[in-house]
Amino acid sequence: MILENGGVCSPKGFKAAGAATGIKAGNSGLDMALIVSDVMCSAAAVYTQNKVCGAPITVTRRNIADGRAQAVICNSGNANTCAPGGIELAEKVCEMTGDALNLKAEDIVVASTGVIGQKLNIEPFEKGIPMLADMLSAENGQKAAQAIMTTDTVPKSIAVEFQISGVTCTIGAIAKGSGMINPNMATMLSFITTDTAITSEMLQKALSEDIKTSYNQICVDGDTSTNDTVAVLANGLAGNPVIDGEGEDFDAFCEALNQVTVHIARCLARDGEGATKLIECNVEGAPDDRTAQIISKSVIASDLLKAAVFGADANWGRVLCAIGYAQGDFSADNIDVSMSSRAGSVLVCAGSRHNLYSEEEASRILSEEEIVIDVNMNQGSGKATAWGCDLTYDYVRINGDYRS
Amino acid sequence: MILENGGVCSPKGFKAAGAATGIKAGNSGLDMALIVSDVMCSAAAVYTQNKVCGAPITVTRRNIADGRAQAVICNSGNANTCAPGGIELAEKVCEMTGDALNLKAEDIVVASTGVIGQKLNIEPFEKGIPMLADMLSAENGQKAAQAIMTTDTVPKSIAVEFQISGVTCTIGAIAKGSGMINPNMATMLSFITTDTAITSEMLQKALSEDIKTSYNQICVDGDTSTNDTVAVLANGLAGNPVIDGEGEDFDAFCEALNQVTVHIARCLARDGEGATKLIECNVEGAPDDRTAQIISKSVIASDLLKAAVFGADANWGRVLCAIGYAQGDFSADNIDVSMSSRAGSVLVCAGSRHNLYSEEEASRILSEEEIVIDVNMNQGSGKATAWGCDLTYDYVRINGDYRS
Repeated sequence: MILENGGVCSPKGFKAAGAATGIKAGNSGLDMALIVSDVMCSAAAVYTQNKVCGAPITVTRRNIADGRAQAVICNSGNANTCAPGGIELAEKVCEMTGDALNLKAEDIVVASTGVIGQKLNIEPFEKGIPMLADMLSAENGQKAAQAIMTTDTVPKSIAVEFQISGVTCTIGAIAKGSGMINPNMATMLSFITTDTAITSEMLQKALSEDIKTSYNQICVDGDTSTNDTVAVLANGLAGNPVIDGEGEDFDAFCEALNQVTVHIARCLARDGEGATKLIECNVEGAPDDRTAQIISKSVIASDLLKAAVFGADANWGRVLCAIGYAQGDFSADNIDVSMSSRAGSVLVCAGSRHNLYSEEEASRILSEEEIVIDVNMNQGSGKATAWGCDLTYDYVRINGDYRS
Repeated sequence: MILENGGVCSPKGFKAAGAATGIKAGNSGLDMALIVSDVMCSAAAVYTQNKVCGAPITVTRRNIADGRAQAVICNSGNANTCAPGGIELAEKVCEMTGDALNLKAEDIVVASTGVIGQKLNIEPFEKGIPMLADMLSAENGQKAAQAIMTTDTVPKSIAVEFQISGVTCTIGAIAKGSGMINPNMATMLSFITTDTAITSEMLQKALSEDIKTSYNQICVDGDTSTNDTVAVLANGLAGNPVIDGEGEDFDAFCEALNQVTVHIARCLARDGEGATKLIECNVEGAPDDRTAQIISKSVIASDLLKAAVFGADANWGRVLCAIGYAQGDFSADNIDVSMSSRAGSVLVCAGSRHNLYSEEEASRILSEEEIVIDVNMNQGSGKATAWGCDLTYDYVRINGDYRS
């Protein structure tokens, strides 16, 4: 069940805060977030695979190597990446956060997002961390969601409630992504909290499996960020029997986690830079799920298809083209493609050939804000979904602007 | 030596023609080209790796399996891809071309470019092929270059003269790419002629090696076309000792071929849809050449970097980001990046860290039409170059328009 106005403070025992510390130059907006659990958590995270990797990732990776963490500190406005003294600064931030919360520095998750290559100063943290510690409240989940935004146009937040062995558990999450105050690529961050009792091993397993069908299936511009981080803290306060292996309880947790992450993934894609439309591509009939994932992502990542959707043009040749250059062992000889929205649905391609349809109707369907492209590969039972957005003049404007 | 106004008719014994046959609806422009050698040629070709593959490619692949061909027939305006009866039509076109020229159908290279998924009719060929056969002339190389254009804004053509064992040989080429009258992805075609005497095996070897550093190193939007074809015809009329193995003569041929293909590759990138600037990325100091190729292509393919160049913004963080997500085994810890144009040069990043430079000077440099990004990976002797273009409002406009 999705909770109204849910977020990282919806699970039991989590508090949060957001503050304006001046990192975002010339901008009085919130730029620092703190999320804290009342008790120690199992922790798991996944990171960017970019070889140029933000300093905070190096420190967070080390801090949660033991599967434990209790708080998240995150700033926006500067990615602390390719910047002098970045690792020392991230370590110092953990120390200061630990001091303010009476926690060990090694139990802090640290993250940064914003422009690459500029020095991040310690002063905003000296000012901000005590301020955040004072403001911590279970009412402040949305503040934290706002404080990690860059050029996001809306904060992204969700919480779901579910049952494990008859016990009510909750997962909450916030994320930022697909926009930048100072254009850069430190794009995607997501922090997930839960009161579910689960070991860090099973938490990592759940997360690593989950991202294959959620965060890894979105694309705005094909540029993999240097700072992408998804971290989960599970504090166990729901009181369910600890999940320490596979089985019904683990499955229930994974299902709820996927509900949260898919929701966030869709929000990120919909709020892609300059986007006017969300594009969802469902692939079925592929040889296997992995191939379906690759195909669906190839479709929503195609600049040509993205521009066609912007123009409400049912140019299905671009869908077939993007399928055709996807990596994998599959046949492209018998593909069906439909395009849908709440305005209707039209089969544009059957058996990899043109299917007679009305261009006017297709254009009307593609003029809606949420476009679904259904692909049937007609050769197996593999399926997957990916999410993207249209390519617009505003994407060029946002990213062609001077950093200023 | 580059020949003035050179093209596919610059080598001895080649004639060409271009005609308007009505395939491009509502457009009286040239849309069919014919290139013919006086004598049988060694032939070699490379094709798209897209699994959705144009019908003409299937037929051409079969026709030059024996390493021989004598003519090229090519239409623009319709890709003959995912269209009913496409292979039969391409076969029929070869037959008709053979009849008109007194050649066998199996010695014809056939190619098409334009919108995907629409039936291509035989009537324009019935009208066009005899017309083209009548117009064949060694003066018509530019006409052929024009007739294969779609939304290209300029025809692409070149010829170079070089020596093999003291004999003057010539290679000429035309290409189309990066634009579409009816937006689609049948993007890149290039036809190369030469009077060099060379076996088809060595010709294929030269071409397959060549494209790794020329055509495969350009990117406009990351969408691999369904109809990409590069074909070479070598008729031997220069009279050089036949090249039938490796050695000095083969090297001389490869060098001249690379001069031709790199020139064409740069022209294609510069004329990318909506482009206002050519971007060249030179990578040196990589572990090996292959890694350097991957890195340089990753840089020029980044939408974020392309948009930054459009905005004359020296956002080098995007260069490092694109290097970082390139596949391969390399370190990203000590990278130098310079940006240059005829207005000057500026070192923007040293040792993967910000190097102090004037943003005003960088912006002035990036306001020119030809931008060079030099990357030193500082870890080996591998080097490579790739070419792309900026991402502009016009790219979105061109590809967001209705097909009409």
